[in-house]
Amino acid sequence: MGSGKEEKKECLHRVAIPPPKPFLESLRATVKETFFADDPFHQFKGQPPRKRFLLGFQYLVPFVEWAPRYTFDSFKGDLLSGITIATLAIPQGISYAKLANLPPIIGLYSSFVPPLIYAMLGSSRDLAVGTVAVPSLLMASMLGKDVSPTQDTKEYVNLVLTATFFAGVFQAALGFLRLGFIVDFLSHATIVGFMGGAATVVLLQQLKGLLGLAHFTSNTDLISVVISIASQAHSWKWQCVLLGCCFLFFLLLTKYLMKRKKVFFWINAMAPLTCVILATLIVSLTHAENHGVQVIGRLSKGLNPLSVDVLAFGSPYLATAIKTGIITGAIALAEGVAVGRSFAISKNYHIDGNKEMIAFGLMNIVGSCTSCYLTSGPFSRSAVNSNAGCKSAVSNIVMAVGIMITLLLLTPLFYHTPLVVLSSIVITAMLGSIDYQAAIHLWQIDKFDFLICLASYNGVVFSSVETGLIIAVTLSLLRLLISIARPRTFELGNIPNSMIYRSIDQYPNAERIPAILILQIDSPIYFANSNYLRERISRWIHQEEDRIKATGESSLQYVVLDLSAVGSIDTSGISMLEEINGNIEGKGLKLVLANPRSEVIKKLDKSKFIESLGQEWIYLTVGEAVSACNFVLPGSWPNVNSVECDAGPDNNV
Amino acid sequence: MGSGKEEKKECLHRVAIPPPKPFLESLRATVKETFFADDPFHQFKGQPPRKRFLLGFQYLVPFVEWAPRYTFDSFKGDLLSGITIATLAIPQGISYAKLANLPPIIGLYSSFVPPLIYAMLGSSRDLAVGTVAVPSLLMASMLGKDVSPTQDTKEYVNLVLTATFFAGVFQAALGFLRLGFIVDFLSHATIVGFMGGAATVVLLQQLKGLLGLAHFTSNTDLISVVISIASQAHSWKWQCVLLGCCFLFFLLLTKYLMKRKKVFFWINAMAPLTCVILATLIVSLTHAENHGVQVIGRLSKGLNPLSVDVLAFGSPYLATAIKTGIITGAIALAEGVAVGRSFAISKNYHIDGNKEMIAFGLMNIVGSCTSCYLTSGPFSRSAVNSNAGCKSAVSNIVMAVGIMITLLLLTPLFYHTPLVVLSSIVITAMLGSIDYQAAIHLWQIDKFDFLICLASYNGVVFSSVETGLIIAVTLSLLRLLISIARPRTFELGNIPNSMIYRSIDQYPNAERIPAILILQIDSPIYFANSNYLRERISRWIHQEEDRIKATGESSLQYVVLDLSAVGSIDTSGISMLEEINGNIEGKGLKLVLANPRSEVIKKLDKSKFIESLGQEWIYLTVGEAVSACNFVLPGSWPNVNSVECDAGPDNNV
Repeated sequence: MGSGKEEKKECLHRVAIPPPKPFLESLRATVKETFFADDPFHQFKGQPPRKRFLLGFQYLVPFVEWAPRYTFDSFKGDLLSGITIATLAIPQGISYAKLANLPPIIGLYSSFVPPLIYAMLGSSRDLAVGTVAVPSLLMASMLGKDVSPTQDTKEYVNLVLTATFFAGVFQAALGFLRLGFIVDFLSHATIVGFMGGAATVVLLQQLKGLLGLAHFTSNTDLISVVISIASQAHSWKWQCVLLGCCFLFFLLLTKYLMKRKKVFFWINAMAPLTCVILATLIVSLTHAENHGVQVIGRLSKGLNPLSVDVLAFGSPYLATAIKTGIITGAIALAEGVAVGRSFAISKNYHIDGNKEMIAFGLMNIVGSCTSCYLTSGPFSRSAVNSNAGCKSAVSNIVMAVGIMITLLLLTPLFYHTPLVVLSSIVITAMLGSIDYQAAIHLWQIDKFDFLICLASYNGVVFSSVETGLIIAVTLSLLRLLISIARPRTFELGNIPNSMIYRSIDQYPNAERIPAILILQIDSPIYFANSNYLRERISRWIHQEEDRIKATGESSLQYVVLDLSAVGSIDTSGISMLEEINGNIEGKGLKLVLANPRSEVIKKLDKSKFIESLGQEWIYLTVGEAVSACNFVLPGSWPNVNSVECDAGPDNNV
Repeated sequence: MGSGKEEKKECLHRVAIPPPKPFLESLRATVKETFFADDPFHQFKGQPPRKRFLLGFQYLVPFVEWAPRYTFDSFKGDLLSGITIATLAIPQGISYAKLANLPPIIGLYSSFVPPLIYAMLGSSRDLAVGTVAVPSLLMASMLGKDVSPTQDTKEYVNLVLTATFFAGVFQAALGFLRLGFIVDFLSHATIVGFMGGAATVVLLQQLKGLLGLAHFTSNTDLISVVISIASQAHSWKWQCVLLGCCFLFFLLLTKYLMKRKKVFFWINAMAPLTCVILATLIVSLTHAENHGVQVIGRLSKGLNPLSVDVLAFGSPYLATAIKTGIITGAIALAEGVAVGRSFAISKNYHIDGNKEMIAFGLMNIVGSCTSCYLTSGPFSRSAVNSNAGCKSAVSNIVMAVGIMITLLLLTPLFYHTPLVVLSSIVITAMLGSIDYQAAIHLWQIDKFDFLICLASYNGVVFSSVETGLIIAVTLSLLRLLISIARPRTFELGNIPNSMIYRSIDQYPNAERIPAILILQIDSPIYFANSNYLRERISRWIHQEEDRIKATGESSLQYVVLDLSAVGSIDTSGISMLEEINGNIEGKGLKLVLANPRSEVIKKLDKSKFIESLGQEWIYLTVGEAVSACNFVLPGSWPNVNSVECDAGPDNNV
């Protein structure tokens, strides 16, 4: 202490103004950070052209990269898990095809070609490819409005394949254009709510099979379904209910047992196929199909027929097909990428989201040309795959071979399979998708997230899947926008015996500095919040003046704005700062800035704000700003204004 | 130095976890901050009920509050400025009504009733109420598609009044629901571009009058207008061009002179009416109307007729009217509120945006019932009002009286007024609206803002006003969303001879700490950026490991995340931190957090993240975190690890 003002100034740290970057360079950096954040071409740097070509081919077709290193040991794991998921794929494929109002055979086709494509292009080692429940249901409800699946079955199937084609194009385009981050705009809370709601809707749809009803409402909401079921109370089939409940009990029991003991894993994994075989045997022995128990019926033998020529590009419903493709494609993608990513994290390998999108896209494009409808990586099947010990995408190939054998030889055996057993299988799978624990977790951590989750759940259950999705996306974005429009501001105080300044709210022991109001702005300053911030800062000053008047402290002289958390600022934000500076000067106070970040100081410099404020009123830390103010103030606070410049390394921050 | 580890821990500052707030209380705080950020009911607190009622009435009708204090001195200023803006209102009202394809008399009506309403309810002292160019044009283009203004004039007028009614309802609703901040989502850059584009389009429309064309394209885009003009080259009227150019020259000259010398202000203010009188005299003396110079024609005498009964609520075009009302209402509101606010700031008084919206809304609702179409606070007229020395909203009353006298007595005088002089007046007003200097400013400060500005300008000029608006809003939101999806991350280093840690990018003299990677995240962590941040942080670690390998430094052991700028976090963000922690531990490194803010630490605590990380790995400052790491590290860096706990107040931050 005791040194002159000039001497003091000298020893403070200067806020650096980074040198201006050429526009093109900063644009390049922004584009890179936006679209190539994961630096996918890292390995290409400094390689000779031939090596680059090889790496590029490996990048596009990961199979080429890992196949040479593939060992027999790995194959043992993949064989076992592949067979396991094949036994799951048969009943699930048929069930989900029914959910999409498609002929059951399409469900089997869809488990043959897409897994082969994914095994070549995909980078996940655990993902099991197959049809997925929610997009299946959504396709039925969106396309069913235009073409009746029962009356114009052929046109309906073509429309579904066309929608699948566009889903694939959309997915691949997202990946190629590196726009995968769009999927990130679906928040965790909305996904929990939406998936839970969709699972509930799928469960409700299964009541048709479980009660053996021939007719059913085409609406998916809870109220329509309940009315439809109640009004047909006379035509419930006790045979179906009995069969369904027995199998449901068996399936749920094996699932429960598996959770308790690992030994039951195999029983649980084989349970669906066991049920199908048992049910088929029962029906064919008792001829229950003559007593109202609906069966799958004849399935044509043979592999997927080509379907390039039936894609309905000239259909009057092309717009619906494109819309359906984009929406279902996005949902399928979100599920598939999330599943792949979560397994990759748990097993500590890396997945490139955009590359996965290209793989999913190509898989669906090729699928739509070979009579397959929309596929993705369903969570339940992938979990079974992973638990059964898969080592690589070869398990998908094994599954495809299993399905191929089924298609070539075994389809006649499914003639007597009752629909009710498929309903039981779907119900068991869907019960796991209602993630009530995640909802409770949301409630505990973030009430607003929970409300969003609840809103999208109810939107799906009480209105329609589309409505729920729109509600979910709108609420997610609204929440983001509100949080941008209303950033937090805090009053800072000095933590005793330090030069640290922290929020008085969070640290009740932090002390206010007389005559100085220290405010912290907690977010980037944009056009969307600059008006609010101007009002809010005026209110802070106004409240502080009221408080000072009430307590009789020395009157306010400085307003220190801590900009540490202001990552960027736009032109509206700079105008706002200029207005605030004008207002504060109008009141005879002085504005002081602390720790403006590089983006901010650059723009403050360019816009001449620094000139009008005075370079000497910008400090590297709040502590230094307060010291400087106190140095100027008469009779200043004894504890804070001593910045000993030559005291060594540990004097301040 | 030299003290034991336990001793050391003790002296570090603890990160406080604020006590949990009840859900309803925090919801109340959020709602208050979102909708009542400016604390409008501040003055009501602790007042007796009678006083509260009085204050409430004054709040709703500010006139009651300031009228008793109104002095004769203020009236002198208001009288002069009121007469000035009345002379401006007559030609502008007629011109903008022509722009909206309305009978000219509606333009005069619209300058009579709304100013009176605003004088009662509005809180700006400088705003001059009147019709506005861009919404006028937009009404014509949106409603003209459904009803032809030339063939079904009556139905068209009714539809315009209905749209005005809904614009008023929308504006008042925004204010009542305190949703005024929605207007903030139009960024400065988009407004500059959009307004410039709209002014260009209005200028282009004036070519009809300036060239004396009888027919004109109903499209507003540049190409249609140029084709329309070129194809009618034979019917250009030299008389109109001559008259128009003379008046345009005179008007621009007075404007230019006013900018040079204040003495010319009055000449400039009176110039439009002078032009109208001169032009009317010239035409009526030369009978130019018989030589193809179009004139206004007969205007009916008398005040505004009531129009409640003609509001077309049963019209088949009601939906269009509502849509038009909402869009034009929003644009008119944005202009009016911005104008009011900027004058309030320059003259240092306060305006409540939401209250202004209610005033605008009621003014337009009453207006639509008294044959007035959409009005707001145009910038040019308000600037004249302010420069002419207005003191309060009484100048609007004076203007209304002036218009009343005109309507009662003077309308026959406008019979011979040529349309071309109105075009000249509009062109002069619009040239000032193309704010090319603001565009240059944008280019200098923020290239991306400039691109947005350019895009919305071109959208308006080359497509349509609606397209331009959609482009502007979409780009603004997209920019916000991208900046949320891709927050910046920085590597921090130690500023020599201090315990301050700042970005190595911004402060090239900042030094890396061996074995410790310090990263700063620059924005709240949301679902929209948590995937990106996970990838980005992995990449930082990966790059740092590469760098260390290349330089042969001691290997990485700690990753310190500085959360100072992370104002909030959601459930997706917490999952992300958990994954990062898992990844980092998987690599044998240790994650350390510095300065988590209250919102963040609360949620980290609730989600048990703190337990899994270890409470002892969370520090109040980066400096303390680094000291703690170094203390544990063998052979640590000599300069940093000495936090002398008992050295006094200035030891650390």
